[in-house]
Amino acid sequence: MTHPFAKEVSNLRHPDYPIDPIILNRWSPRSMTGEEMTDEELFPLFEAARWAPSSYNNQPWRFFYAKRGTPEWALFYDPQIEFNKGWTKNAAALVVAVSYKKFDHNQKPCRTHAFDTGAAWMALALEGTRRGYVVHGMEGFNYDQVKKNLELSEDYEVHAMIAIGKRAPKENLPQELQARELPSERKKIEAIAIQKKSSKP
Amino acid sequence: MTHPFAKEVSNLRHPDYPIDPIILNRWSPRSMTGEEMTDEELFPLFEAARWAPSSYNNQPWRFFYAKRGTPEWALFYDPQIEFNKGWTKNAAALVVAVSYKKFDHNQKPCRTHAFDTGAAWMALALEGTRRGYVVHGMEGFNYDQVKKNLELSEDYEVHAMIAIGKRAPKENLPQELQARELPSERKKIEAIAIQKKSSKP
Repeated sequence: MTHPFAKEVSNLRHPDYPIDPIILNRWSPRSMTGEEMTDEELFPLFEAARWAPSSYNNQPWRFFYAKRGTPEWALFYDPQIEFNKGWTKNAAALVVAVSYKKFDHNQKPCRTHAFDTGAAWMALALEGTRRGYVVHGMEGFNYDQVKKNLELSEDYEVHAMIAIGKRAPKENLPQELQARELPSERKKIEAIAIQKKSSKP
Repeated sequence: MTHPFAKEVSNLRHPDYPIDPIILNRWSPRSMTGEEMTDEELFPLFEAARWAPSSYNNQPWRFFYAKRGTPEWALFYDPQIEFNKGWTKNAAALVVAVSYKKFDHNQKPCRTHAFDTGAAWMALALEGTRRGYVVHGMEGFNYDQVKKNLELSEDYEVHAMIAIGKRAPKENLPQELQARELPSERKKIEAIAIQKKSSKP
């Protein structure tokens, strides 16, 4: 099965080594139809997140969400910056990626809670884009307000907001966003994979 | 193409919703052959990491690595706890997942550096296990010592060590690890996907 975003990606991304299409073809569009999504459509994304690795299999990730048209939508939407509100208004679901900062089994601090939650978020994004949905993470919102709206204690950390929805043509976006509706490039592999050379003679 | 770990996973993991096999079949074995890996074998894993999403496409992830048989191996191996040394000695590469804590473009603090680096780590793990390699993350090592060994400034944070290698039968492991050479289970989906209900009437 061809990845639904493959065609847009193929001209713009040129990997040095072959990788699974699900990874190369994931990107973060903004244009969504404003339609709702059923649990059957949405839950496979959370299902994917479940299977991420974590230190001691602690699974510190918690994905809080609100569906469009519900009273709770505003708790997620209102704290966003105006720029994001301009396109997330057409999302089907708004999700906040949160981590629990302690180990379940002994309540001691968990060093990798943010890192592990990022791994779960990646699985969620991959499964969602594979299914042709927009899955777009962002940090443009008031973190303190979201934490308050979700009634989270100090044991939790908020990492990102995620807009999920059914994809629309880029022409549905405000003019200034249409030019940005493209898969992004990346640093060279040498910048992120660094073979350690001892500084000692 | 069937995922190389699919057979072991199918009896043990029962997702509530169908997801891509690359995600469900990733797990973290420990038994490795002790063989080396070429750059052609290793670099597709870093390639996969490149394409993860990050706030402002800042790509804060840095994967420092040493290959077995090089003088730098000890910088990665020695800080590990004895338990991990018992099986990582057969890895082909030891990798440390690090993040740069600032935005490249303005050197201001980047809130999501750990979270974003976790996303890149997930891509690396997925690509590696898809190729049949052991890709096993761990936190059982002296973080301060690794930071010193890698000569990292305060602008960087160390998140995890990753052992990568060619897979061996579980019988190659020390007796006490053989029983643990199995895909792990996960929390129920309701524990990690939480529909926000307003506490207000």
